[in-house]
Amino acid sequence: MPHGCNGRILRVDLSKEKILTETLDDIFYRRYVGGEGFIAYFLLKEVKPGIDPLGPSNKLIFASGPVTGAPIPGNGRSSVGAKSPLTGGFGEAESGGFWGVELKRSGFDAIIIEGKAKRPVYLWVHDREAEIREASHLWGKDTGEAQRIIREELGDDLIRVAQIGPGGERLVRYACIINDLKDVAGRTGMGAVMGSKNLKAVAVRGRGRVNVVDSEKLKELTNWLIQNMNDVIGWAHNYGTGASIAAYAMIGNLPTRNFRDGNFSNAEAIDAEAVKNTVRIGMDGCYACPVRCKKVVRIGDPWSVDPVYGGPEYETLAALGSNCGIDNLNAICKANEICNRYSLDTISTGATIAFAMECYENGLLTNEDTDGLKLNFGNAEAMVQMVEMIGQRRGLGDLLAEGVKRAAEKIGKNAEKFAIHIKGQEIPMHEPRLKRALGLGYVISPTGADHQHNLHDMGITGGGRDLNRFAALGILEPIPLEDLGPRKVKALIYHVDWCVLNNCLLLCNFIPWDYLQETEIVRSVTGWNTTAWELMKIGERVTTMARAFNVREGFTKEDDWLPERFFHPTSSGALSETSVDPKKLEEARGTYYEMMGWDENGVPKKAKLEELGIGWVAELLR
Amino acid sequence: MPHGCNGRILRVDLSKEKILTETLDDIFYRRYVGGEGFIAYFLLKEVKPGIDPLGPSNKLIFASGPVTGAPIPGNGRSSVGAKSPLTGGFGEAESGGFWGVELKRSGFDAIIIEGKAKRPVYLWVHDREAEIREASHLWGKDTGEAQRIIREELGDDLIRVAQIGPGGERLVRYACIINDLKDVAGRTGMGAVMGSKNLKAVAVRGRGRVNVVDSEKLKELTNWLIQNMNDVIGWAHNYGTGASIAAYAMIGNLPTRNFRDGNFSNAEAIDAEAVKNTVRIGMDGCYACPVRCKKVVRIGDPWSVDPVYGGPEYETLAALGSNCGIDNLNAICKANEICNRYSLDTISTGATIAFAMECYENGLLTNEDTDGLKLNFGNAEAMVQMVEMIGQRRGLGDLLAEGVKRAAEKIGKNAEKFAIHIKGQEIPMHEPRLKRALGLGYVISPTGADHQHNLHDMGITGGGRDLNRFAALGILEPIPLEDLGPRKVKALIYHVDWCVLNNCLLLCNFIPWDYLQETEIVRSVTGWNTTAWELMKIGERVTTMARAFNVREGFTKEDDWLPERFFHPTSSGALSETSVDPKKLEEARGTYYEMMGWDENGVPKKAKLEELGIGWVAELLR
Repeated sequence: MPHGCNGRILRVDLSKEKILTETLDDIFYRRYVGGEGFIAYFLLKEVKPGIDPLGPSNKLIFASGPVTGAPIPGNGRSSVGAKSPLTGGFGEAESGGFWGVELKRSGFDAIIIEGKAKRPVYLWVHDREAEIREASHLWGKDTGEAQRIIREELGDDLIRVAQIGPGGERLVRYACIINDLKDVAGRTGMGAVMGSKNLKAVAVRGRGRVNVVDSEKLKELTNWLIQNMNDVIGWAHNYGTGASIAAYAMIGNLPTRNFRDGNFSNAEAIDAEAVKNTVRIGMDGCYACPVRCKKVVRIGDPWSVDPVYGGPEYETLAALGSNCGIDNLNAICKANEICNRYSLDTISTGATIAFAMECYENGLLTNEDTDGLKLNFGNAEAMVQMVEMIGQRRGLGDLLAEGVKRAAEKIGKNAEKFAIHIKGQEIPMHEPRLKRALGLGYVISPTGADHQHNLHDMGITGGGRDLNRFAALGILEPIPLEDLGPRKVKALIYHVDWCVLNNCLLLCNFIPWDYLQETEIVRSVTGWNTTAWELMKIGERVTTMARAFNVREGFTKEDDWLPERFFHPTSSGALSETSVDPKKLEEARGTYYEMMGWDENGVPKKAKLEELGIGWVAELLR
Repeated sequence: MPHGCNGRILRVDLSKEKILTETLDDIFYRRYVGGEGFIAYFLLKEVKPGIDPLGPSNKLIFASGPVTGAPIPGNGRSSVGAKSPLTGGFGEAESGGFWGVELKRSGFDAIIIEGKAKRPVYLWVHDREAEIREASHLWGKDTGEAQRIIREELGDDLIRVAQIGPGGERLVRYACIINDLKDVAGRTGMGAVMGSKNLKAVAVRGRGRVNVVDSEKLKELTNWLIQNMNDVIGWAHNYGTGASIAAYAMIGNLPTRNFRDGNFSNAEAIDAEAVKNTVRIGMDGCYACPVRCKKVVRIGDPWSVDPVYGGPEYETLAALGSNCGIDNLNAICKANEICNRYSLDTISTGATIAFAMECYENGLLTNEDTDGLKLNFGNAEAMVQMVEMIGQRRGLGDLLAEGVKRAAEKIGKNAEKFAIHIKGQEIPMHEPRLKRALGLGYVISPTGADHQHNLHDMGITGGGRDLNRFAALGILEPIPLEDLGPRKVKALIYHVDWCVLNNCLLLCNFIPWDYLQETEIVRSVTGWNTTAWELMKIGERVTTMARAFNVREGFTKEDDWLPERFFHPTSSGALSETSVDPKKLEEARGTYYEMMGWDENGVPKKAKLEELGIGWVAELLR
C-alpha cells in the first residue's frame, strides 16, 4: 500500500451485525485511489442494478483519500457514496472538515456499510476497532443534541461524528450527511440512504499517524500557499464563498426565483461581504488548512442561530436566498441552521422550495396544500417554516421532501416545467444560460446536476494565472463563456477529470494548486512516481466508471439534458436576450461522448475502458 | 516565442532562388513544438495530396526542437521530413550529432526547402543569413570529399554539413541525409528528396546563444545523469548499440537471413563487444552528451574503413550482418562506411540486399541479373559490392535502389513474399514474432516500419526501474512480450506518444529521463508551465497529424499490416514454434484505432482532432 494510507478498510453488515477488516494492495490504491474512485469501484462490483436505493441491498461507502490527513492544506475532505435515492443513479458527495482525517487516523481508509439494522444504531470506530452501538435514544434528536450525547457516552470530546438528523431518518430524498454539525456531504441524498439503514451516526476517533514520504516538500508547498494566500485564494480567506453575489447578479449568474428571473435587486444584502459586516462572528476551516474559508454566524431572536452550525456557503445563500426571491440574510442563516440540524442539503432544499413557490404563484399549489402558508417568492418566514416542514415531512413538506422531480409528477398540471433538475437532482446555483460549459457539465455529471463534478468555467475564460494554469494541460487560449463548441467541450472534460481526481484524492477544489504542485503533493505523500498524465487519467477513469454505473441502471442520453427553462431567456436582467441553444447543446453532448470514447448513446466503448485499465467494466455493460 | 527558440524559420524556394524569413509565435511552438511536429504541420498545410515525392512540389523540412542546443544531454538531434519517395506517405527521420544545434545557433529553428534548383546547389546558413550557392563541382563527390570542399571554400572548419552523397543524387529511394559524415537521418528516403531538388548540402554555422529559463535545474539533471550513468545507460556508454546481439540471437530477436531463419550461430562475432575488442578505436557522441554511445572504427586493407565515417549501430550490424547471413564484422563496417559515403540508409540497404539474396537463392534472380555476383546469404564480399552498386545504381543495384516493394513488383514471380516491408519501407531489426507490440508499432507507424516511432517494448515487460517509469503513466503491471491484447495496445500508444514527443522536442530516445524529469527539462528550457499531460498530448497530436497526412494520400487500413512471413514461425531457433496470429493482430489494430479515437478504417474522428487542438485537420479529410 502507498504511504499516506492504512491499506485497510472496514466492512460493516448491519443486518448480520458483522464487522470485517479487509486489506487492499498498492495497485488497487493506485488505480482507484480513494474517495469517489473507491465508491465507483465498490458500487459497480457489489451493487446489483435495479435495487431499491432505500432498501437493504444498497451500500453506503465512506472513503478518505491517500492524502487525507497528510500535512498539506486542502486535504480535510472525505467522500460518501451509494446508489442515489434522488436520481436512482450514481450517488456521491464530499465534505470538508476533520471527519475523514479522524477516520484515517483510526486505522481505516474507508467503510462499507451493508444491510439494514433492525433498530437504530450508530457505529463507533476507533484505533483499528469498530463497534455497532444502540441508537434508539438518539433517533429523532437533532444533530447537535445527538453529537453531544455520543461524545458524552463515549467519554471523549474529540470524537468526530458523521450523522443524520431527523431529515435523514425520515428519508428526505435529498438528506445530507453532516460532520461536526457543519461540514456537509450534501448532494444525492446520502443521508436518506443512511436513514434507510437505521444508521444514525458514524463516530470516529484515532491516534494513528499519517506517514508521508517527503514532509519537507509538503512544508515547502504549504509555505508557498501561505505566502501567496491573498494572491491565489484571498477571496476565500477573507470572505469565504459568496463574495461575488453582487457581481453575479449583474452578469446574470445569480439564480433568481427558481431560475426564472434575471435580476435580483438587493443582491448585496445576501453576499459574503454582508455576512461579514453583520452576522459573522469568525471563520472556521478544515484540517491543516490556513485558508479558513468557512463562515461562522450568530444571530439573536427571533431567528436565533447557534454558531455551532456554521454559516451559509454561496450555494446556500443563493438557493435559500435569491432563488427563493429572498434577501433576508437572517432568514437564510436560520434556514441553513435548520438544514444542518435536520441534515438537509441546502441546495435541494432551497431549489425545492423555489419550485413550490413558483407552483404556488401559478396556482398549482393552493393555500390548502400549504396549510395556509403564503408561499410567495420573497416570503422569508414561509421559507424558513417550509424548511422545518420538509425536515419533519409535515404537510406540504412531505411532498417536497421527495425533490422537485417527484413532487412535480404528483402535482401534475404541468408542474414539471417548474421542476429545475437533471436526473432528479436539483440544479446548483450557477447559470447554464451564462456559463455554457457549466450547463453541459451539469448535464453529463453522473450524479445529476452537481457543482463538485464541474466547478465552474471561469478558469477557462480568465486570463493571467488561470490561463497559465490551464495551459499546463495544453489549453492555450481563452475561450468565451458563451462558447459551447468543441474547444469548450475539451476544456470541460479536462476540468471534470481534474475535479473528479480531487474527489478521489480528496483534495480541495478551491486551493489552486497547479497541476505540477498537485503532482508533487501526491508524490510526496504516497511515494508514487506519478505524473499529471496518470492523475488526469484517474479522473477520466472514475468519471467513466460512474457513467457505467448509470448506463447499467438504464440511464440514456435523454437523461443528459437541461430543463426546458434554460432554452429560453430569463424574464429580465443580463440574460433576457440569450439562452442555451438546444441544437448546440445536443451537438456538444455528442462531441463530449465522442471525446470521452463513448458511443453515440453515451455508453463507454470497450477500447476506452481497456485504455483506462478497467476492462472488467465492459462485462457489466453487455 | 518560448525560451530556447529563435521564433524564426527560413523558407527557401530553390526554383525561384528566393529566401524568406518567417516568424512563429509562442502558441504555435507550444502546439507543434518542433521537429516532427513542425514537419507534420507544414506538410499538411502546404503539400497537396497526390504530388510526386521526387517532384518540385514536395517540400523538404529541416527542424530543430525547443530544447535543441540547451545545456542538457540528449538534445543534439534534429529532424527532417517530406512526403516519402519510399512510402508515398509521411516521411520523417531524425539524426543525432551537432547539426541541429548549429542550425539553432545560426538563428533559425527550421528550414523549409521548396521547388527544385536548375543546377546543383547547396545552402549556406549562418548568423541569421542564408545563401544559395553553386554546387556543380560537388555533385558526384562522396560525402567526405564534399564536406572537405565546402568547409574549405567557406573558410571555416567548424561548419556543420547536412548532405547527400551520390546515392541521394541518384534518387535511391531510401537515400538518407547525413551530417558530419556519420550522424544519419536514415529512414523514408529524405536523401532522395534532397537529390530531386538538386540540393547537395545544407551547411550551417552560428554563434548565437540558446537562452534557457533555468540553467541551474538543467545542471542538476545533467549531474543526475552523470552520477547514474552506469546504472541507467551504462550499456550505451560502454558499448553503444548492439551489445545485446548475442542475447538477441538466443531469444529470437535477431533478424536472420531476411527474417527467414531464427538462429544465427556466430552472433557474438558481430555484437558491440566484438566491435569493442577488435575494430573500435574510440567512442563519439552528440552535443552536450556525456553518454557518448557512437562507435568509431578503423580497419586496414583490404576493407579499409576511414574512422571519419563513424561505426555501425545495432540496426546496421543486424541489417548488413545477420539479416544477410553475414558474420564478418569488417565487411559490415566497410558496408556502413560506403552507406555513409553514398548517403544510403543502412537498414533499407541491408534489408534490400537480404531480399535480393533470398530471391537469388530461390532462383528469382539469376547470375545474369547479378552480373555474375554469387548473391548467397553469407557472402560478405558480394554484400559489400552490392552496397556500392546500389549507391551507383549500377547493374542490379539500380533495381535494388528502388527498395524491396518496387523491386519485388518488377521481379514478379512471387518475389513479393520475400519483400519484408510495411508501406514500402523495409522493416528495422527487431522481431515482430517475439515483440508483438513492436510488430503492431511497425504496422501503425505513419512512416512505415520505423524504430523511431516505436522503439521497442522492453520497457513494458521489464521490472524495476523500467516498470517504475511506465507506472508514472498508470501502467502498473508488467505485460509479457507475447501479449497483443488491449493492455499492450494501450502501452504501445503511450510509448509511441512519448517517442513522437521526443521527435518533436528532439530529445534522445535512449537517455531514460523519466516523465517528470523530461517535464522539468521542457519547463527549464522554455519557461512553459507544462506537465506530462500536455507533453504526452503533443505525441498524440503529431501521431494523429501524420496519420491524417497518410489518409489524405489514400492509405487505408489494409496498409497497416505485417508481411505474410511474420504469420509463420522462423525456420529454426527460438521462434520456430511461434508467430503472430493474424486474427489477434487485426483485433489489436482495431483496438488501436478505437483507443486513438479513429474510426474503424483508421481515420481520425472530428472530435478527437478537436480534442487535440487541430480541428482544422478535419477539413483536409473530407
